[in-house]
Amino acid sequence: MAAPLGAVVSKVHMLSTSDHASVVSLNLFVALLCACIVIGHLLEENRWMNESITALLIGLCTGVVILLTTGMKSSHLLVFSEDLFFIYLLPPIIFNAGFQVKKKRFFQNFITIMLFGAIGTLISCAIITLGVSQIFKRLDVGSLDIGDYLAIGAIFAATDSVCTLQILNQDETPLLYSLVFGEGVVNDATSVVLFNAIQSFDISNINHRIALQFVGSFSYLFISSTMLGVLAGLLSAYIIKKLYFGRHSTDREVALMMLMAYLSYMLAELFYLSGILTVFFCGIVMSHYTWHNVTESSRVTTKHAFATLSFVAEIFIFVYVGMDALDIEKWRFVSDSPGTSVAVSSVFLVLVLAGRAAFVFPLSFISNLMKKTQNEKISFREQVIIWWAGLMRGAVSMALAYNKFTSSGHTHLRGNALMITSTITVVLFSTMVFGLMTKPLIRLLLPHQKQATSSVSSDQMSSSIFYGPRSPKSATLPLLGPPQVSDGELDNLHVIQSRGLRALLTTPVHTVHYYWRWFDDSFMRPVFGGRGFVPFAPGSPTDRSLHGGAR
Amino acid sequence: MAAPLGAVVSKVHMLSTSDHASVVSLNLFVALLCACIVIGHLLEENRWMNESITALLIGLCTGVVILLTTGMKSSHLLVFSEDLFFIYLLPPIIFNAGFQVKKKRFFQNFITIMLFGAIGTLISCAIITLGVSQIFKRLDVGSLDIGDYLAIGAIFAATDSVCTLQILNQDETPLLYSLVFGEGVVNDATSVVLFNAIQSFDISNINHRIALQFVGSFSYLFISSTMLGVLAGLLSAYIIKKLYFGRHSTDREVALMMLMAYLSYMLAELFYLSGILTVFFCGIVMSHYTWHNVTESSRVTTKHAFATLSFVAEIFIFVYVGMDALDIEKWRFVSDSPGTSVAVSSVFLVLVLAGRAAFVFPLSFISNLMKKTQNEKISFREQVIIWWAGLMRGAVSMALAYNKFTSSGHTHLRGNALMITSTITVVLFSTMVFGLMTKPLIRLLLPHQKQATSSVSSDQMSSSIFYGPRSPKSATLPLLGPPQVSDGELDNLHVIQSRGLRALLTTPVHTVHYYWRWFDDSFMRPVFGGRGFVPFAPGSPTDRSLHGGAR
Repeated sequence: MAAPLGAVVSKVHMLSTSDHASVVSLNLFVALLCACIVIGHLLEENRWMNESITALLIGLCTGVVILLTTGMKSSHLLVFSEDLFFIYLLPPIIFNAGFQVKKKRFFQNFITIMLFGAIGTLISCAIITLGVSQIFKRLDVGSLDIGDYLAIGAIFAATDSVCTLQILNQDETPLLYSLVFGEGVVNDATSVVLFNAIQSFDISNINHRIALQFVGSFSYLFISSTMLGVLAGLLSAYIIKKLYFGRHSTDREVALMMLMAYLSYMLAELFYLSGILTVFFCGIVMSHYTWHNVTESSRVTTKHAFATLSFVAEIFIFVYVGMDALDIEKWRFVSDSPGTSVAVSSVFLVLVLAGRAAFVFPLSFISNLMKKTQNEKISFREQVIIWWAGLMRGAVSMALAYNKFTSSGHTHLRGNALMITSTITVVLFSTMVFGLMTKPLIRLLLPHQKQATSSVSSDQMSSSIFYGPRSPKSATLPLLGPPQVSDGELDNLHVIQSRGLRALLTTPVHTVHYYWRWFDDSFMRPVFGGRGFVPFAPGSPTDRSLHGGAR
Repeated sequence: MAAPLGAVVSKVHMLSTSDHASVVSLNLFVALLCACIVIGHLLEENRWMNESITALLIGLCTGVVILLTTGMKSSHLLVFSEDLFFIYLLPPIIFNAGFQVKKKRFFQNFITIMLFGAIGTLISCAIITLGVSQIFKRLDVGSLDIGDYLAIGAIFAATDSVCTLQILNQDETPLLYSLVFGEGVVNDATSVVLFNAIQSFDISNINHRIALQFVGSFSYLFISSTMLGVLAGLLSAYIIKKLYFGRHSTDREVALMMLMAYLSYMLAELFYLSGILTVFFCGIVMSHYTWHNVTESSRVTTKHAFATLSFVAEIFIFVYVGMDALDIEKWRFVSDSPGTSVAVSSVFLVLVLAGRAAFVFPLSFISNLMKKTQNEKISFREQVIIWWAGLMRGAVSMALAYNKFTSSGHTHLRGNALMITSTITVVLFSTMVFGLMTKPLIRLLLPHQKQATSSVSSDQMSSSIFYGPRSPKSATLPLLGPPQVSDGELDNLHVIQSRGLRALLTTPVHTVHYYWRWFDDSFMRPVFGGRGFVPFAPGSPTDRSLHGGAR
C-alpha cells in the first residue's frame, strides 16, 4: 500500500504554501543556521575563528553547492532584499546592543565616540571619494560621475558593527569595545544619512550653504532620532510601572517591551529618521528603567531572548552575505576583465585602510588631549586595534551598494556590476582576513588585559539574576554610575565638592554625572521606575508572574 | 532654519524602505498590537471579555477608520496571506501549546482526544456538507458543485484552537482544557488533510477504494508527522546534551531550540505532512527532554519567550481577522442581496452547532464506556462545555476559505464572494457571541471547580523556577507521571503488581504508563537527558551561562 499512498500524498495540492520552492529554501536556510550554531560552538575555543567567519564560510560553501546543482544559474536561496535587512534583521541586533551595552563606559567616552563616529566617517568618506576619483580615471571602469564617487565613499565608510561585536569582548577589553562599538552605531547612522544626502543633493555645485544644510540635517537627524528612542523607552517604562503587569503575566511585559522597541524603530523610519540610533537609545533607556519594573522572570527572559534574536539575525546576515557573494549574474559581467576587477577591489581595500588610519590616529590624539589621567588616554597600541577592528565592511555596505548600483537586485551595466562584485570582494576579504587577524592582534598587542578581567566580570554578572533581585549587574548599572558602588553611591558623589561652572570645566564627566544622578533620582526614577525604585515584594509579583504561561 | 531643513529631510530619498506605504502599515499594526496588550490587560478582570475578542474588536474599529479615511476603498493594512499565517504565525502558537501542555492529562485522554479530533471532525464535516447541499439548492447562491460543498464542510469543521486556549484555563478546568485543546490540534490537522484530499480526489465517483485510500492517507500523515516531530525534538535534546552548550552560552541553546522547532515544522511542510502535528509533538518532546538539558536561565527564557511569541502571534491573527472582515471588495458583491447573505451565514452557523453536537455527545458516551471510575467520565455538563467551547471558527477557516474561493485574495464571482463574506460573518459571530458566552457558561455549569484548584496550582507553578532547580512543575511533569509525586514515584508504580496482558486489559493507561516509564528511564533519558538525568552542579553551568549575553 505504500506506493499508491505516496502517490496520493504527493498528488495532494499543498494548501499551506503557495510556492513549494520557497519552502525548500526556508528549510535549507533554517538548517544552515542550526549548523552554524553547532559548528560555531565547536570552533569556539579556536583562536582564529569566530561565528561571523564560520557563518560566512558556510554560506560560501552552500553557495558553491547550489551553484553546481542548479547548473551555474543561481547561488542564493532567497533574493537579497534591503527591506529584509533593514526592517527585520538590523533592529534586533542594534536594540540588543543598546540593551546590553555598559552604559557607564558608553557615556564616559561619549565625546570620543561622537568624534570617531561622525567626524571620522566624514573624513573616511572624503578620502575614499578623493582616492577613487583620482585612480579610477586611469582604470577602465565605465562611466562614473561625481555622485557615484561620493556614493562609493559613503558605501565604504560604513563599518560593520555586527562583526565588531563578535570580535571584541565587552568584558575583556571594555574601553575598546565601547569605543569601537559606539563608533559603529554612530557610523551606521552617519553613513546612511551621508548616502541619502548624496543621493538627493545637487552635487554639481557644492557651496558653503549646502554644507551648512548638511550639518543641520545631520544634527536634526541625530537629536530627533535619539529623542524618539528615549521617549519610546520611557513610555514603555511608564506603562509597565503604572499598569503593574507583573502581577498577571510575564508574557505581556515581554511582548510589550519587544513591540515598543520595534515600534520605535519603525516610527523613526516613518519620519525619515535614523532607526538605528533610535532603537539603540531605546535599548539603553529600557535597560535603565523598564527592565527594573518587570518581574524577575521577565528580566531573565528579555535579557536572553533579545540576545538570542540578535544572535540569530547576525548569523542569518553572514550566511546570506556568504551565499550572495557568488551571485553569478554580476560575476559574468566582469569575467572578461579579471584584471580590472582585482585592481578595483584592491584600490577599495587600500582606501579603506588609509581612510580609517586618517581619522583614528589624529582623532585619538585630540581625544587624549581632553583626558586628564594617563589611564583614560588611548594608548598607541589601542589606537592600532581601534583602527584594525573597524576595517570590516559588512551588510550595510552591501545594502547601500545594491541600492546605488542595481535596480531591485539586477543590473545590466558593466560598470555597475563591477562595483557590486568589488563590494562583495571587499566585504568578504575584510571580514575574513581582517576579521581572522583581529583576535591574534589583540592577543599580541594587549597580552596582559586578556586574562585580567574576564573571570571576575563573568562571576559578577552571573550571581545577579537568580540569587539576588537587586545586586548590581553590568548590563543594568545606572547611567554613568561609579563602577563598584550600588546603593552607597552618594558617598562617592560627595567627593565632588566644588560644583558649578569651574567643576564642569575641570572634571566635566563627573560633574555632568553628578547632576544627571540628582535629576534621575529626583524626577525620573519616581515616575519611570528603575533600580531601587520599584518595591520588590518577595512572593507576590514574581511568584504570580510565573503563572503567565498558562494564561 | 527649521523649514528648509524639513524640506531637505523629506526630500531625502528613503534608502531603508523601498515602499513607504508598507512602513506606515507596519507602524499602525505594531501600535495596534501594543494597544491590544494594554487594553487586554485592563479588561482582564472583566468576566465576559478575553484577549481574542478585544483584538478582534480593535481590528474591526481600525478597519472602519481605515475604510472611512481611504474613501471606502480598502479596510486592511496588509494583504491577507495564507503564507504569513501558515508559515509564520501558526507554528509558534502550536509549538508553545505542545511545550506548555500538561502531558500527563493529554496522554491520559489520548483515545478520547483522537475520537473527537479525527472521527468527530469527519462527522461534523459530513453533516455540514449534507446540510449545505440540501439547503443551498433552495437559495440563490450561484453555481456550486459537490466539490464546493465538501470544501465548505472541511472549512467549517476546523475549530479555532487559538481562541479555545484563551477561553479555557489549564489550571481551572484541566480535563476540559486537555480535551478541547487536544481535539483542536488533531482537528486542525484533520481539517487540512480533509481539505487537501477533497481538492485533489476525484469526487464525482466516490467508492470504497477511495474511502480506504483516504483512511490510509490520513494514518500515514498522522504517524509520519508525529514521528518527524518526535525525532526533531530528540535530535535537539541529543545535540544540546552532547555538546553541553550551557557551559558557554544560553543564547545558543535558546536559538537552537527555536530553530529546530521551526525546522521540524518546515520539514513537515516540505514532505507534504501536517506541520501542525509535527511541531506540536516536537514541543512535547522538547519540554520532556531538551528543556532539562539546558541551563536554568535558558529554561526561564524558553518558557516565557515561546509563550510571548505565541501570544503576539495570536493577537496578530485576531487583529488581522478583525480588519479583514470589512473587506469592501467582497461585500460590494453581496450588497445587492443582503437577505441571501444573512440566510447563508445563518445556515452555516446552525450547521456548525448541529455538526458539533452530532459528535460531541455520542463520542463522549463511547468514551465514558471505556472509563472505569465515575471521576474519569465526562459529565453531561462538561459535554455541553466541550460542545460550546469548540464552536468558535477562526483563522484556519478563513485561510481555507480564501484558498478555495479566491485566487490570491481576489474574486470576481458572486457565489465565491458570498462564501467569503459568510465565512467572515461566521468567524466574527462565533468568536464574539459564542466566545463571550463561554466564560459565563463555565461559571454557570461548573461553579465549584472554578475556585477550587486555581490558587493551589498557581502557587505550585510559581515556586519552581527560582527557588529550586528540580521541584515539580506542571509544564515539565514526566509523560503520564502521577500528579503529586516527583522522585518517589517508583513506590507508586509498584502498586501495579500484576503486569502483562491481563493488566493491560484491566488498567490499560496505568500499564502503558508503567512500561513507558521503564523504557524512558532505561533507554531514553540516559541518551537524551531529562529530569534527574542531567547533573545539576550549582554555580558551574548556570553561572557561566548568564555570561552569554556578552559573548
